[in-house]
Formats: sequence, structure tokens, C-alpha cells
Amino acid sequence: MKLSDVVLTLEEIAPPELAEDFDIGRIGLTLDLENDIEKIAVALDPTEYVLKRAADIEADLLITHHTLIFNAVNRIDKALADVLKIALDNNISMYSMHTNYDRAKDGINDVLAKRIGLENIEETDMGRIGTISPCSAENFANHVAKSLDTHVWYTGKREEVSKVMVFGGSGFKSEFLETAREHGVDAYVSSELKHDIIRSWDDMLLVDATHYATENPGMEELCPRLEEKLGIDVEFIDHNPFIRTL
Amino acid sequence: MKLSDVVLTLEEIAPPELAEDFDIGRIGLTLDLENDIEKIAVALDPTEYVLKRAADIEADLLITHHTLIFNAVNRIDKALADVLKIALDNNISMYSMHTNYDRAKDGINDVLAKRIGLENIEETDMGRIGTISPCSAENFANHVAKSLDTHVWYTGKREEVSKVMVFGGSGFKSEFLETAREHGVDAYVSSELKHDIIRSWDDMLLVDATHYATENPGMEELCPRLEEKLGIDVEFIDHNPFIRTL
Amino acid sequence: MKLSDVVLTLEEIAPPELAEDFDIGRIGLTLDLENDIEKIAVALDPTEYVLKRAADIEADLLITHHTLIFNAVNRIDKALADVLKIALDNNISMYSMHTNYDRAKDGINDVLAKRIGLENIEETDMGRIGTISPCSAENFANHVAKSLDTHVWYTGKREEVSKVMVFGGSGFKSEFLETAREHGVDAYVSSELKHDIIRSWDDMLLVDATHYATENPGMEELCPRLEEKLGIDVEFIDHNPFIRTL
Amino acid sequence: MKLSDVVLTLEEIAPPELAEDFDIGRIGLTLDLENDIEKIAVALDPTEYVLKRAADIEADLLITHHTLIFNAVNRIDKALADVLKIALDNNISMYSMHTNYDRAKDGINDVLAKRIGLENIEETDMGRIGTISPCSAENFANHVAKSLDTHVWYTGKREEVSKVMVFGGSGFKSEFLETAREHGVDAYVSSELKHDIIRSWDDMLLVDATHYATENPGMEELCPRLEEKLGIDVEFIDHNPFIRTL
Amino acid sequence: MKLSDVVLTLEEIAPPELAEDFDIGRIGLTLDLENDIEKIAVALDPTEYVLKRAADIEADLLITHHTLIFNAVNRIDKALADVLKIALDNNISMYSMHTNYDRAKDGINDVLAKRIGLENIEETDMGRIGTISPCSAENFANHVAKSLDTHVWYTGKREEVSKVMVFGGSGFKSEFLETAREHGVDAYVSSELKHDIIRSWDDMLLVDATHYATENPGMEELCPRLEEKLGIDVEFIDHNPFIRTL
Amino acid sequence: MKLSDVVLTLEEIAPPELAEDFDIGRIGLTLDLENDIEKIAVALDPTEYVLKRAADIEADLLITHHTLIFNAVNRIDKALADVLKIALDNNISMYSMHTNYDRAKDGINDVLAKRIGLENIEETDMGRIGTISPCSAENFANHVAKSLDTHVWYTGKREEVSKVMVFGGSGFKSEFLETAREHGVDAYVSSELKHDIIRSWDDMLLVDATHYATENPGMEELCPRLEEKLGIDVEFIDHNPFIRTL
Repeated sequence: MKLSDVVLTLEEIAPPELAEDFDIGRIGLTLDLENDIEKIAVALDPTEYVLKRAADIEADLLITHHTLIFNAVNRIDKALADVLKIALDNNISMYSMHTNYDRAKDGINDVLAKRIGLENIEETDMGRIGTISPCSAENFANHVAKSLDTHVWYTGKREEVSKVMVFGGSGFKSEFLETAREHGVDAYVSSELKHDIIRSWDDMLLVDATHYATENPGMEELCPRLEEKLGIDVEFIDHNPFIRTL
Repeated sequence: MKLSDVVLTLEEIAPPELAEDFDIGRIGLTLDLENDIEKIAVALDPTEYVLKRAADIEADLLITHHTLIFNAVNRIDKALADVLKIALDNNISMYSMHTNYDRAKDGINDVLAKRIGLENIEETDMGRIGTISPCSAENFANHVAKSLDTHVWYTGKREEVSKVMVFGGSGFKSEFLETAREHGVDAYVSSELKHDIIRSWDDMLLVDATHYATENPGMEELCPRLEEKLGIDVEFIDHNPFIRTL
Repeated sequence: MKLSDVVLTLEEIAPPELAEDFDIGRIGLTLDLENDIEKIAVALDPTEYVLKRAADIEADLLITHHTLIFNAVNRIDKALADVLKIALDNNISMYSMHTNYDRAKDGINDVLAKRIGLENIEETDMGRIGTISPCSAENFANHVAKSLDTHVWYTGKREEVSKVMVFGGSGFKSEFLETAREHGVDAYVSSELKHDIIRSWDDMLLVDATHYATENPGMEELCPRLEEKLGIDVEFIDHNPFIRTL
Repeated sequence: MKLSDVVLTLEEIAPPELAEDFDIGRIGLTLDLENDIEKIAVALDPTEYVLKRAADIEADLLITHHTLIFNAVNRIDKALADVLKIALDNNISMYSMHTNYDRAKDGINDVLAKRIGLENIEETDMGRIGTISPCSAENFANHVAKSLDTHVWYTGKREEVSKVMVFGGSGFKSEFLETAREHGVDAYVSSELKHDIIRSWDDMLLVDATHYATENPGMEELCPRLEEKLGIDVEFIDHNPFIRTL
Repeated sequence: MKLSDVVLTLEEIAPPELAEDFDIGRIGLTLDLENDIEKIAVALDPTEYVLKRAADIEADLLITHHTLIFNAVNRIDKALADVLKIALDNNISMYSMHTNYDRAKDGINDVLAKRIGLENIEETDMGRIGTISPCSAENFANHVAKSLDTHVWYTGKREEVSKVMVFGGSGFKSEFLETAREHGVDAYVSSELKHDIIRSWDDMLLVDATHYATENPGMEELCPRLEEKLGIDVEFIDHNPFIRTL
Repeated sequence: MKLSDVVLTLEEIAPPELAEDFDIGRIGLTLDLENDIEKIAVALDPTEYVLKRAADIEADLLITHHTLIFNAVNRIDKALADVLKIALDNNISMYSMHTNYDRAKDGINDVLAKRIGLENIEETDMGRIGTISPCSAENFANHVAKSLDTHVWYTGKREEVSKVMVFGGSGFKSEFLETAREHGVDAYVSSELKHDIIRSWDDMLLVDATHYATENPGMEELCPRLEEKLGIDVEFIDHNPFIRTL
């Protein structure tokens, strides 16, 4: 199967024009070897570990959520060269879908909402809002931790939760929390919670469920969808950063 | 005592010219009532709770680490008006010292290094580097949690720790981690650890000890110093965001 | 009456989207106390004198043409604090309508044209153009001075006037004078006439009738309109800068 | 005498490096005909009238305070072409000295201070501060009007004047008024007074003595200085905009 | 005939809105003397030689492809003054049509394609693509040199040519060469070929036929078109830079 | 030999701080494999041909004048991937010295001046000025063509040449030609001559000797210098774009 045909399918799943402006230049083929594709690997990040695994399983294309080269470069350092060498020697092209896949139907945020078990789901520009059976803040945090198999870190004054907004990745931004407040949300689940956000938005329950655990499910569920659409083998590579808490 | 005289002393302790460029306009008197100062309150953030406490103890000046108005405003909304009203009705001027006090001698970073018990301390541009008796990663993380009385969240491949860099507040930035790497640091203690940093810097032990717990000690220790220098009453107001972890 | 309902009416009278680009962030509620409104004060500028008068008459909202904080601030100085304290202690919200009200139907420019007695009035983007009975330049300047109860200052080579353009506030700008020239205007009435404008546009009669006197009538006439629409008491506060001439 | 030699002398009198940043590209030869100079004309503005007079008196160079082309052009319109034709047909080069001559010793501001009779003159960055025998605000305004032979327009709450700051041209800017306030100035003499300045600075007496009348003396007094330094004929051309007041 | 009427016709031939963004301010009347037009001169560049010839033939308007003042000026130097004096003394207005005429129907690129004898011509945004009878690279280069009466300089690996793109003036830019590659072009004819372009695009035959020779024909053919449309005399002035090669 | 030691020597020869501002990020190691260096290749451009030759001769480092990635990239296309693969598979690091080596002593411009046989050489900021025995323009152009073994293309009105400025690469820029004019230069040798330069600077003889032929000698002569300094094998790779002229 031609790489360009795979790209057409990927653009149907996550139309590049859905991406945020800051993602310009970061969506699509980030390493374009114009090769034929018989097998695809999918992962959250293009780490060296992930590339090695992709080579082991003889993938021809690696699809990730985060791009290989975030800030444009004029120089290639050893770390980037090491990753590139694995890709070039094993003829693995690379493709990135980021905020376009966050927004897309059945993308990062939809999968996240589903994993947490939200009902009556409403789409906002980026996150998803839904309901759960009313429970205490602590029980809700516990439920999130179990659903996503992760540590969580939470704060805020809300004691009972029934309306929830989820936002995969780094979603504790005022503009999105504003949306949550306007919708009467009790708990906001995302990651990378910062001090200034806690100070301004603690009338809600703020649950930091890690960047990895809120986005990884969306990439995992991409695999069966792709297999069905393309009729070729698609394999997920899990590379969890091992976070501990005390 | 004239407010302008208090300001001179504060500028000795944390010279405004030490501040980062992004802090321009955010250091110094953020509410200047030109009043006389008999009593001073100190806190990390100018929250409504902190202002009320400052009024209760009849403070004439509130010194905080974070500024009242971060992004310049043309409009005053209800939340800001509520805080301002407490200050205006109780004649409390406000003063902010931020990255200038991070850098200053005996400022945020020096106090943080002392609390964690570092020895052979070396100043870098912002953080501080020092040594501890060699211990395992887990024991080190445990020691930080106890020293700062906080939850911690940690990751990374380093298994033994003897050289440590500390950076109060949001210090997981590549430029500062670069400094740590060049100095052969084993563990880096700061807050607001993000996913992309974990991916690029996990050859060190990365310990997120929360923004509050890494900066609050520096504000607390400002009180006795000010009392001694000014000869007036200075009281610390602790307003800990209650964070829980699972 | 809820503040938000008053705002809806003000936005009908002077739709914010009519404002010039430089007014972004300066139109609307500049101090939003979310209070109930029983009485409204109107003035050209939010000076300390005006705020005191607004407090005396127990106004809950002050509407002005010029905004309270023109350049966005990170700090509040004594002068701003003094004004804010009056507003906060007397629970007076503040609202600003500026270039949107200049342009609006029956706004600053329409009222100005009416006061000077123009006929056959034509709307341009900002100013208004109309006719008067032909008279000499000196008689016209005299008529303007009397109509607006102000000193005037005038120059230019046109000796007879029958077509007039008026522009409340600081309207001696090339782009607007260009419009006047294209319409065959004899006399241009506005304020804050500068030397470079005199040098390039003195083929018309240029009449500087002061910023205050050209804009104040529009604010004055806002009062009865508001009273009628809202059914509550609206009072005008006149704070004329006392200008003398020799 | 070579034009380049005249330029050297002009640069001694008003060093171009004294100019404000906004004057970059506007100081020096604005029409460089590389001609020999036997006679020089001086005026405030390069109006068509001034050019015609310069041609009548057979000047080879016209020195003005304001430049010929303020905003850089790609096109030459009829008005500019008319002025240029007079200059080109009569072989008149043009030279502009603006904020560099405002600041220079014996430049615009020094001459203005002398005309008004200030004593104990102190130089600030731009304006000049000095003293006069104490008098009432009205008497002072009257004295300025007579000294500069102009109408004046004044306002402000100060009733007695003994310390004065003068600033030729458009000097009612906050940064300069701040200087005046810090020096305890009672009256500020300049031109192009705007409403927002009146509102913020009316604790001083603000005297608008017109742009022309505050700058023209400095250009007039340039003539004898140049004649003495260069040994050639230098003639002043007065082109007063005829301003009337009511 | 009024100048404004001539301008209307010129804007029909080369609508200003077709121009590239960088040409803003550079299209249209560059010297507007508001004179009557009885005779028109046309040339590629407004050189002093061209202006003198325009004066000799008593032209009232000079139309050129390149503008008189490329970078906006605040000062007029001797070289520009010399050209302006010829124009002003002989009452010659000036008009420039540049990238708008490149793009326009029957403009620079259409005439160039016709001169080289292309068939089946296809319009792209700027250049034109067409076919010729297949020939060797050398024969094609020779044909271009003869058709345009110029030296040519060529490089690239393509050995047989049948599809050709032409681009008058400085057209060796990646964005336009990309278009050529997508259309399967064998030879690209333009001018000002640079080293970095040779390195990236030498799979095509790149023929540099000089800026002058690729644009001059379009200006020459403007003359009969204008004569027919306006009914007045239009004369072409050829000012070829004499280039030699070894 | 360690790569970092080779870099130190290269920085002595061409100090990076001599580079133009636009070269920021383009000087130094453009592919850093942190490998040991036993053999070095040198060329003007990092073309695929050059990389293959570097691999054939078993070079560990390729030094070029032009950088591998001119505009910073977020994506790696097939063409760049092909070049990178050769470098990565053969463990060839890459280093670029550009305008710093143009300016450096015995760099591009010094070698160019020597090749053409200039005497009494004077350094300017970038180019070099010197004298030759007086000769006709044609003879001079012929001499340049033979000295550099290249076609040349020349124009301009100067008929006799004795003072010459040379500038390797794309040096026909007004700022440098201004320097030439001030020094009374007769002939200017550089490359990538454009039409607008011909129009403004044809009082000199302008000789375009191609980008390649004016810069290649400087890279060639770098080889023996490096061999002597480093004591390892350094080989030059010549990849001339084959340019023909008619």
C-alpha cells in the first residue's frame, strides 16, 4: 500500500485543518520516505524505545501523537540522529496527528470520555463534557485513577461530582476552564495542573491524571480502526513513563 | 514608617534588576496607597483569604511572591474588585517580589536548598546545586516530601542520588535542566513537571514537589529578616492549596 | 434592575462592534461589580470629582465616554486607587462607550451636528456632513462658539462657509479631512488641531472647539434616552475643564 | 562654499545623534543637489510659500525644522511635486534639523526659555526649567502671549507661578510632564494640549502657546549664528499660520 | 486626454489588484502631475536615459515596468533629483505596472511565451507553461537566445525538451519551480538564476535569459495596444544594458 | 581525534562570531554524531554526490561552506532523508562555515583575491580590494575567467581597470558596492548579478564569475591548512554545476 494512500486515510480520521494554529508544520508526515506500507506502529511519543520496537516488529510507518521535531531545527544533534538512524535504516516513515486528533470524532477526547464512563456527552471546541452518577470528590478521583490506570493528583472545593469535563493532555488552560464553568462542570480531568490555575479555578474539582494516561487511550484505540480501514497490520507500542508518588 | 522606606529595604533584599525580563512591570508596589506602615503581612499569593487575614491582623502592607495582576488589565472584574476592596478599605498596600527574590541571596532558592539539607551549595543563575549523603531515588523522594511537608511525584532512571539541583516554583525548563546535566546532577527538585520534559530529561531523577511547597519556605523566612531590619511586626500567612494524591 | 440588563440596553444604543480597533478592551464594563442598578450617572470622564458626585447622588453605575484605565496596568497607583475606592465603597460599577457611541445613530456626532444646526445631514464613517445658511468664516466660528458654549480657535483660507463637517473629539486626522475635502466641505469642526494638519489642510476653515465641548452634548443627551428606555433615574454630571484664552 | 561644508557646520550646531529615534531618516539633507551654497534661507516649515520666497531671494539651501517628507513615500503626488519643482528649478537643496535642534545648546528650547525670560535655567532631556518673579496664573499666561506674540490657551488649578518648564512644539506628553512635576514646576508652556493631558495634569498651569510660536524663535535665531560661522548671507522666512480665537 | 482617463485604461490592461503583496504602494502613478496626456512613452526602467528620450519625443506620461522609487524614501538624493527634474521640467507623469502586468492577460508572461513560440499554453499563477517540438537542451537554449536576441546561461540534467515554463524577470523561486515540476516541465526559462536553485532544481533544464530580455518584449507590445485603445501616440524606448559573456 | 577538538581548530580558522546575523544557527556542527575523526572531506555544498564521495573515501566529517538545512525544518522530506542516511550509515558528521569563513583571514575572499592576482590588498568588512596592472575591461574579464576557470558575464561603462574589488558568492549588494565606489574601484567581481544592480551601479565594470567559481577556491585551500594543523588526512571534493553559455 502506498504511503500517500495511508496518509489519505489518516487525514480522514484526523483532518489536519482541525489542528490548533501552533501545530502548523507539526501535523502530517514528519519523516517522509515515500516507501510502501505493509505494517504500521502507533505510539504516543517517538522515543528511541518506540522506534526500536517499531523496527523489531518491522513496521514501515510509525504514527505518534507528539511530533518528532517540535521546534524547527537547522542542526541535528546526537539524540535526534540516533532516532533518525533507526528510522532510516529500517525504512520507517513517521506521521504525527496532534490537536487535530484531539478534536476529531472518536479521537483523544472522545476516547477519554468513554474510558471514564461519561454519559450524555457534549462536544466543546476541544474537551468533552458529560455526566456520571453523583459521587464524592474522593470517589470520583479514585474512579478516574482506576479507569485510566494511573496516579492522580487533585484539589479544589467541590465536594460532590456529577458533571465532568475531560481534556486529554495539557488542558488546564483558562480558556477551556471558562467553558467548563459556563457549563456548570463539577470536575475537570486533564493534566499538567499549575499553581496559578489552582488559585483561580478551585471552585471546581481539578483532577490531574497525567499527560500520558489521558492521551494514550486515544492512540491505542486508533489501531483497530486503522486495521479495519486499511486491511493491514497495526500494532500499538506502549511506552509509559514510570511515575511514582508519595 | 514610610512605605517608601520599607520599599528601599525590600529592594535591598531582592533587587528588582535581578528579575527575569518577563517580570517587567510585575515587581514592586502593585497597589501603592502611599500609606504609613506599622505592620506587614507576607504570603505566597494575594488570594482573597490572604487579604482578609491581612486585614484581621491590621497589616498596612502585604508582600507576596506572586503579583496581584499578572496580565495587564483595562477592566476590573468582580474577583479583582473583591480583593481590591479589602485592601482599599483596610488601607493595605501591596508589594510583589518574584524572580528577583528567587535569585537573591537567602531568597526562594537558597531557603529551599537549606530546607532539603544540601551541602557544598553552588549558585547557578537561578537554581542551587548541592550534595547530600548518597541514597536511593526512593529514599531521596521521601526525604524531600518530609522536608517540605508535601506530596511529591517523581520519575526518571537515576537510581542513586548524591548531587541535587533545586529550583523553587516552575523550574522544569530545558535551559535549567541543561545546567543540571552539565553539573552532573542526579536529582532535580522543582514543580510543574510536564510530559515533554519527562521524555527528554529522564536520565535524571525528576522530583515534582509542588509549586507551593518549593516556594513557600522562602516567603516564610522573609518574615524574621524583615522584622529585624525594619523593627516592626511582620507576620506570615499560610494559604496552602489542599492537594491530595492517589 | 440587573446590571447585565442595563448593559444589553447600552449595547443597543452603542453597539460595541462599531468601535475602532484601538478601542478593543476599552468598551463595556470597566468596573464590574455585578450589582443591581437603581440609578445611573453619566459623564464625559471618570474623574475623582465625577465619582464623588456619582456617590452623592447614590448612583449604582457610572457611564462615561472615556475609559477609566486607558493603558492596561499591572499596578494600581494612588490616583487610580482613590477613584476605585470611591466606586467600591459606594458600589458603583463603571461602563465606557467611546468610538462605538461616536459612530452610533444619535451618538456623539449626531448630537454635535444637531447642536450646530446642520441640515441635510449625511453620515460618513465617523463624522457628519451638513449645510448651514452661507456665512463668513468669522460668523461661522462665532456661531460654533455660541452653540457649544465654548472658546474656539480657528484658521484656514476659506472665507465663506455653507458646507460643514463635524467630528466630536480629536478628529483632525488626515483620513477624515480627506473625506471632508472629497465632499467639498468648507468648514471642519473638531478639536486638538495640530500644526502639521494646519500646514496640509488650510484650504478649509478649521475650527477647534475643544474636545470637551464637542463631545459633552452627546453624553448629556444620553440621559433622557436611557431614562425612557430603562425607566430608572439617570443624571448627568458636568465636569468642564476651565479653559481660558488670550 | 560646498554643501558638504555647510552640513558639517549644521551638524556642529545640532548633532544628528541628539535626535529622537522617531526622527531616524528625517534629519539632514532631505533634498541633496550637491550644489554650491552662496545664500541660505531658514524657516520653520518647507511650505510652497516658503520655497517661493527662498527662490526669490536666490537661496541655494533651505533649512527647516520640519522635514519635507515626513512619512516615507514610493509615490510623488502633485503637492509634493509642486514644491520639488520650485526647489529643483532654482537649485535649492533642503536640510532638516528637528529634535536634535530641540535638544541642542542654544536650540529651540534654549531660545524659547530666553524669550520668556526664565532665569536659573536647568536643562532636562528635552525641555528647560527656570524661574520667573512670582505672579498670578493669568499674568503669567499674558506674559507668555506677549513674549511670543501669539494667542495662548491655558488651564489648570495652579494660581501662582514662579517655576516654569518650557518645551517648544508638541510637548504635552506624560513623560515630560512627569519631569516637570518632579521639579516642582508651577507652569508648563508648550503646544497641542490634549484633553487627556488636562485631565491628568491640571495641578499645574498648562499654557498652550501654539506650535508655531514656541518653535519659530529658535529658527529665527539660527540665522545670525549661521551667518557668523559661515560668512555667507542667511535670511529668515516667516510663514505664520494665521490663527484666530474667540 | 485626462491623465485619470489614461489610468483607467491602464488598470483595465493590468488590474492593480493582480499585483503581489510586496508591490503594494509601487503600482500606479508614481509621479502624478495631474496633466493632460497627448503622447505616451513606454520603457522597462525609468533610467535617466529613458527620461531624456521621453522628453525628446515630448511624452506627457512615461509607463515603466519597474517603479521609480522602490524603497520608500524620506530623502531625495542627487540621482533621484536628476531624474525628477527631467520629468518635472518636461511635465512627464510616471506610471508603473509590475507584477500585475506580469500576471495580466497579454502581459509580460503571455508575450514571453509567444516570442519563444510555445503552444498549448497553460496559465499558472505567474508563469506560463507550453510545448515545443522536442529538441535537445542545447538546441532549446539556442532557440531561446535567438528568439529573445540575448545571451543565455543554462544548466541542469535534462537532455531533451518538449514542455517549457517561462517566467519573465526574476522567476527562479522554489514556489514557481515547484509548479513546473508538478507539471512535468523539462525546461524553465527565466532570469537571475542563483546557486542554491541550481543545487535543488537541476533535474530540469534551467535557462537564464536575462531579466531585460524576458521582460522587455511585454513592454514593447504594450505600445500598439495602448495606441489602439487610446487613439494617441505611444512610443517604446529601448534601453538595453549591454551584457557580454566569455 | 575527538570531533570536539577538530571543532576547536575550525573555530580558530573561521571564528563563528564573524558570521553575519542571518547565519545564526547555521554555523558549526549541523550533524553532530560525536564520533572520532580520522579523515575529513571538504566541499562547497553538501549534495548527495558529495556525501557519497565522502563515504567512498571513508571520511568521518564533511566540512562545507553551505549548510545542510538552510531553513529550519519540522519535517524531513525524502531528499534530506537520502542525504542524512548516507551520513548516518557511514558515520559522517557535518560542519558548516559560511560568512564567518568569508570574512576570516585566508578565507574565501582572501583566496579569491590571491587567485585573481590582486596586489596591495586592503580588507573591507567582507570583500577585498586590490590593484592589477591596468588593462581594458574585456581583458580583465578574460583574465578573471581564466584565473577561476569559469564562464563570466559582465557589463558596465568602465573601460579601463586597475582597482578591483572581489567578493566570493552573492556579493552584488548595494551596501558592498557602496564601499567599492568610495574606494574608487573600477571592477567588481562577484556573482548573482541582478538587473536592479546593473541599473544603479553600471559606472563600474561588474563581473559575474559564478557563485561556485568565486567560493570554491577558498574551500579547496582549506584542505592543506587543516592537514597541517590537525595531522590527519583532508580531501577536497569538487562538485561543479556544469554551466554553459551562448
